[in-house]
Amino acid sequence: MRRPTIADIARQAGVSKGAVSYALNGQPGVSEATRARILAIADEIGWRPNIAARALNGARAHAVGLALCRPARFLGVEPFFMELISGIEAELSARSYALLLQVVGDHEAEMGVYRRWWGEGRVDGAILVDLHLDDPRVPEIEEMGMPVVVIGHPSAAGSLLPVWADDGAAVRETVEYLAALGHRRIARVAGLPRLVHTVIRDRAFTDVCAGLGLDVCPTVHTDYTGEEGARATRRLLSSPDRPTAVVYDNDIMAVAGLSVAQEMRLDVPADLSIVAWDDSPLCQVVRPPLTVVARDIPAYGGHAAQRLLSLIDGADTRPLEDVPPRLTTRGSTAPPA
Amino acid sequence: MRRPTIADIARQAGVSKGAVSYALNGQPGVSEATRARILAIADEIGWRPNIAARALNGARAHAVGLALCRPARFLGVEPFFMELISGIEAELSARSYALLLQVVGDHEAEMGVYRRWWGEGRVDGAILVDLHLDDPRVPEIEEMGMPVVVIGHPSAAGSLLPVWADDGAAVRETVEYLAALGHRRIARVAGLPRLVHTVIRDRAFTDVCAGLGLDVCPTVHTDYTGEEGARATRRLLSSPDRPTAVVYDNDIMAVAGLSVAQEMRLDVPADLSIVAWDDSPLCQVVRPPLTVVARDIPAYGGHAAQRLLSLIDGADTRPLEDVPPRLTTRGSTAPPA
Repeated sequence: MRRPTIADIARQAGVSKGAVSYALNGQPGVSEATRARILAIADEIGWRPNIAARALNGARAHAVGLALCRPARFLGVEPFFMELISGIEAELSARSYALLLQVVGDHEAEMGVYRRWWGEGRVDGAILVDLHLDDPRVPEIEEMGMPVVVIGHPSAAGSLLPVWADDGAAVRETVEYLAALGHRRIARVAGLPRLVHTVIRDRAFTDVCAGLGLDVCPTVHTDYTGEEGARATRRLLSSPDRPTAVVYDNDIMAVAGLSVAQEMRLDVPADLSIVAWDDSPLCQVVRPPLTVVARDIPAYGGHAAQRLLSLIDGADTRPLEDVPPRLTTRGSTAPPA
Repeated sequence: MRRPTIADIARQAGVSKGAVSYALNGQPGVSEATRARILAIADEIGWRPNIAARALNGARAHAVGLALCRPARFLGVEPFFMELISGIEAELSARSYALLLQVVGDHEAEMGVYRRWWGEGRVDGAILVDLHLDDPRVPEIEEMGMPVVVIGHPSAAGSLLPVWADDGAAVRETVEYLAALGHRRIARVAGLPRLVHTVIRDRAFTDVCAGLGLDVCPTVHTDYTGEEGARATRRLLSSPDRPTAVVYDNDIMAVAGLSVAQEMRLDVPADLSIVAWDDSPLCQVVRPPLTVVARDIPAYGGHAAQRLLSLIDGADTRPLEDVPPRLTTRGSTAPPA
């Protein structure tokens, strides 16, 4: 088992390795007929210039890195990351770039991975996700000097290039719509409280509820799992001031919330309106289908990859505010009974 | 923006590049004190030996490849691939191997990716998934000589190293259980008909139904999406001989089937028993929670990665039949009313 080499081509063509090298590099020293024969043989046996040799000649790694710092079991739960990766992939493959992927346990391990990938010349850049408040990765990456695009809000991205969407606007649009339907008690089942996008959604929710003078607007933080989403919903629906509408920070928690409503014999949407964040096939197969805050996640990933490739090319690359998520109404929202 | 180089170390240490090279390579020519100082500076500024230089010296790429040939939108739907990747990742990172991931549109593009990765020395091997009947990738990879582990049945893996589980046994266990509950009309909503594991499940289902002398046992093939799962369920439940139990080939279709039952005012499990394939948080958050055919998917991916690393090491590596999927009962199965 081994890769085809220049020696293999030389043997099959009946010429010297030097002649093969001349032919492959477009240098003089072989006849056009021989060159054509050598190129045909190279193609036929699947010979490619070695990536290592190219990299040593100053070429690039032609790969970008993505380290995901989430427990493995959460990654299977949310369609978000796989959709994001699909979008990143689509852009990268069009430019023959590969994606180096690693799942890590914590930010320290993640930085170790980035330092190794960058130091060893395995990647030309990376995409950073799940920004935290005062994220220690930002200054470390700034110091490393690796080209990086951050999928997250510019306020936490330091000098790294951000690609983001206005989550606050989507929260406002959602709450204003529910209030217009007549809801006065709206709850939010939110994600991890240290993530920047959670903080932004938290603030927008509190602000818009206060602005509308709504009665009760609790936010409960979770770890994004269905179990915690179900638990938070049970607690909210057991309170004396139970909400008539709940906005969830992902799809799996919204589906879990719908099941809890059914278990507690509450009708959705008559007794409880439900809004999920991120549309997914899941939201459309349950009954009633869920009203969602939808974004084109593959496109979002694609834009981040485009920006990163442009940064790697040394082009003047600007931050990108992507289109804001949009409220898409289905059967799970209605005026309160 | 650039990687730390030997010149940077030399400048900071106030020595020649040659001295740095001697120190880093453990060669004589520098004093122990200077060597220690050079190593400390190299560590501090994050210098690493370039992967390209190492590869040219005959070292490995320290990466393995995985090309996924599924439309991007399906990848986000099923937790399966992300869980499999998590498991592969866990093994690879323990050995400081990276995973090169690419989503491709068809098998031709997939083979193009493998030929490029292998020819350019980007990977030391690859993992092949979603085996088809008479899969053209198998002979092509055999010819390439790239170390490959196939996640799939040995009957279709040619001379490539297979890692698989006995899906047929799990189908038999499930149908025998449903029959023991008293079901005589059991349907199956299956996945893509050309996949080897679908064919194996199809055959096992037909055989066990015939062996038990069951009345009606239709199999409907789908593309694994919730939409097709819902459509198949609606058709099955509208037939004069409607089944009292349906076994689904994934989780999202089972959840879609549950919603269709609710939409048609059929009680689960009194009027209809439902079994999902692959346990996921999704199966546990719906009401009733779903009886499932469960496997430890991350472990499965981990075993495949272990076998591949062993193959790359040139060790004597045997095919692995992993533990069979297991029936785990929850509230969605009961004797027919």
